Amino acid sequence: MQFHFEPLAENVFLNEDGTKVCILDQTLLPNVSRTLKLQSPEEIREAICQLRVRGAPAIGIFAGYALFVLARQIKTQDTQEFLAKLHAYREYLVSSRPTAVNLGWALERMEKTAVENAHLPVEEIVCLLGQQAVRIQKEDIEMCRAISENGLSLLANGAGILTHCNAGPLATSRYGTALGPLLLGKERGMQFHVFCDETRPLLQGARLTAYELQKAGIDATLLCDNMVAAVMQKGWIDACLVGCDRVAANGDTANKIGTSGVAILAKYYGVPFYVLGPTSSIDLSCKTGEEIAIELRDPEEIRLKFYREPMAPAGVKCYNPAFDVTDHSLITGIITQRGVCRPPYTESLAALFENERGGET
Amino acid sequence: MQFHFEPLAENVFLNEDGTKVCILDQTLLPNVSRTLKLQSPEEIREAICQLRVRGAPAIGIFAGYALFVLARQIKTQDTQEFLAKLHAYREYLVSSRPTAVNLGWALERMEKTAVENAHLPVEEIVCLLGQQAVRIQKEDIEMCRAISENGLSLLANGAGILTHCNAGPLATSRYGTALGPLLLGKERGMQFHVFCDETRPLLQGARLTAYELQKAGIDATLLCDNMVAAVMQKGWIDACLVGCDRVAANGDTANKIGTSGVAILAKYYGVPFYVLGPTSSIDLSCKTGEEIAIELRDPEEIRLKFYREPMAPAGVKCYNPAFDVTDHSLITGIITQRGVCRPPYTESLAALFENERGGET
Repeated sequence: MQFHFEPLAENVFLNEDGTKVCILDQTLLPNVSRTLKLQSPEEIREAICQLRVRGAPAIGIFAGYALFVLARQIKTQDTQEFLAKLHAYREYLVSSRPTAVNLGWALERMEKTAVENAHLPVEEIVCLLGQQAVRIQKEDIEMCRAISENGLSLLANGAGILTHCNAGPLATSRYGTALGPLLLGKERGMQFHVFCDETRPLLQGARLTAYELQKAGIDATLLCDNMVAAVMQKGWIDACLVGCDRVAANGDTANKIGTSGVAILAKYYGVPFYVLGPTSSIDLSCKTGEEIAIELRDPEEIRLKFYREPMAPAGVKCYNPAFDVTDHSLITGIITQRGVCRPPYTESLAALFENERGGET
Repeated sequence: MQFHFEPLAENVFLNEDGTKVCILDQTLLPNVSRTLKLQSPEEIREAICQLRVRGAPAIGIFAGYALFVLARQIKTQDTQEFLAKLHAYREYLVSSRPTAVNLGWALERMEKTAVENAHLPVEEIVCLLGQQAVRIQKEDIEMCRAISENGLSLLANGAGILTHCNAGPLATSRYGTALGPLLLGKERGMQFHVFCDETRPLLQGARLTAYELQKAGIDATLLCDNMVAAVMQKGWIDACLVGCDRVAANGDTANKIGTSGVAILAKYYGVPFYVLGPTSSIDLSCKTGEEIAIELRDPEEIRLKFYREPMAPAGVKCYNPAFDVTDHSLITGIITQRGVCRPPYTESLAALFENERGGET
C-alpha cells in the first residue's frame, strides 16, 4: 500500500510517504526552527508532554496523524488484534495531557473510524485512518478561517488587543483561533496594536505569539504577565482575545494559566474579553469548570528551565498549574466557527450543537 | 578625623573606617552572596540603577551612607565650596531612580544637615553627616519593627498570605515592611503559608522573597505572576501584603509593577489587600497617583537578562514599566510605623502627619 501526503501546514504534517508525523519543535522558537520527524510511540508521546507540539487544535491534528503512523506499524492481518493494539496506542497517547479536550476528541474520532470499518481488511482500515487524519486537519483549517471571520467582525480597525499565551497558526493550522482575526484583518489591510503577555513559565507569548505577529508584520509589544493591569489602566486595550483548551456547558473556560486573571482585570477595566476556539473544544458533558482536571507541571519550569542558573532557592516549593478556569461571568463572548455565543452560555453553547447537521463525523 | 562604624545590618552598612558603603549584591541572589564595597560616585550610582541595592527603605539607607562617603572625598576647607559639591553629588544620585521617594528623602535630609550646620568647619559637618546616616538606618530598624507589629495585629495564625516583589530585610534593614509581620510572627511561634509571586522581569519574588522566607523557616510556595488568580480562586489566600515606593495623599500607591493587578484580583475575590511602608514613603505633596512618575526600564530585562538565549524575537518592542499605581479604592489598609490607616486615606494619611511631634528631624 502506498501513501502520498502533501503538507497542509508547516507546523504539523505527515512526511511524504506517511510513515512519520512531522512538527516544528515549538520549544526551540524563536531562536531555532527545527522540524522533528517522529515515528515511535515514545517520541510521539514525549513531543506532547514536552510541549514540542502545543495548542489544543494542533495537538488534535498531531494526535490524528500520530495514531495513523502508529496504526501502520501494527503487524497483523487480524482485525480484532489490530483494533486492540490501536486502542492501546490511543490510551497511551490520551494520558499525555489531561486537560486538552482535542487530544481525546481526535483520538476517539480516529478509533471510531477503525471500529466502524471493522468488517474491512486491516490494510483498508489503515487507509481510512490516513484519510480521517487529513480530514481533521482540513476541517481545522476551515474552522480557523471561520473563527477568524467571526472574531474579526467584533474588532475595529486600529484596535488595541491583548493576547495571552499562543493560539496562532502554530497552535492550530492556518490563522489560528485567538490570533486568527488579527492575521485575517492584516491580510485585508487593517491595523491592530497588539500587546502580548509573555505567559510564564513557558513563555509562549514571548516565544511564539510575538514571533507570529512579527512574522505577519503586525504591530506587537511584549509585556510581562504582571504588566497587563498597567496597560489596561492606560486605556490601550480595546479587547482581549484568548484561546481555550476546554469549555464547559456553562461557559466556564479552561485555558493557559493566567487567563482567568486577565479576564478579571478586563472586567474591572470594562474591556471585552473574548474566548476563541473550535466547537471541538466545547465539552457539553462537562457541566461547569469545577469538573475540569487541571494538569500540574514540573516546578523546575519555574525555577530553572530557560535560565542560565536557578532563579529561586534550591528546594523551594513551587505551584505550577498549566491551566486555570475562567468563570463564565467574566467572558463577553465565545467565538466558534459556527458563530459568536453570548451569555447565558448554557443556552447559546447548547444551541450550537442543536443546530449541528452532519458536520465533522 | 577617625570614624569607626559597627554594621547595623547585613545588607547595607559602612565599612569599619567609614570610607566605603557596603551592600549585599541583590542581583546575584539566591545563588551567590557577594558584598560590594563602593566608593566612587559612578559605582554608587550604578548600584542603584542596576538594583544591586533595591527596596525603597534600603535605597534611602544606602543613599545616606553613600552621600557621607562622597562628602569625605570633597577636598576643601571652604564650607560654601563643600556645600556646592555635596549638592552636586545629591543631584547626581537622586536622578538614578525617579520613583522611589526614599532616595530623594534621605538625600534631602543629609544635605539639610550640612546646610543647617554651615557655620561649622567642614570636618565637623562631615562628622554630623556620618551620624545622620547612621540615624537614618537606626530609625529604619525601629520603623520596620513597628510596621511589623502593626501588620501582625491584622493576621491570624495559620493564614495564607500572598506577597509581591520583595519588601523584606534585604529591601529595608531588619524585618522588612511587607515581610515584617511574617518574620516577627514566626519569631513568636506563629505559622503562615506564604505564596510569593516571582515578580517578572527581575524576579525579586523568586530570588529574594523566597530566599528570605526559606532562611526564616517559613512555609513558602513560589508562583508565576499569572498564577495569583488561580490560588485566590482556590481560597488559599487570606491577605495580600505588599510594600510601597510612594504613597500619594489620597492613598494611591506606586509599587513594583504588578501590584495593581494583584490588588484588583484581591478585590474580586474579597481578599484584604494591605500596603506596608514607613511614613517616609508617603508623599502628601503628591495629591494622586497620576502625579507619580513611572520609570521605564530596558526591554532586554524582558527579552534576555537571566536567560541562556533570547526568549523573544529580536527587535520585538517591549513595554517595561518598573512600577504601577494601585488605586486607593483597592487598598484595605496602609500600615505604617505609626499605625494602620483605613479609607478615606486623604484623612487618615494626613492625620499621621498632624500627630507628628518631632520624630525624624
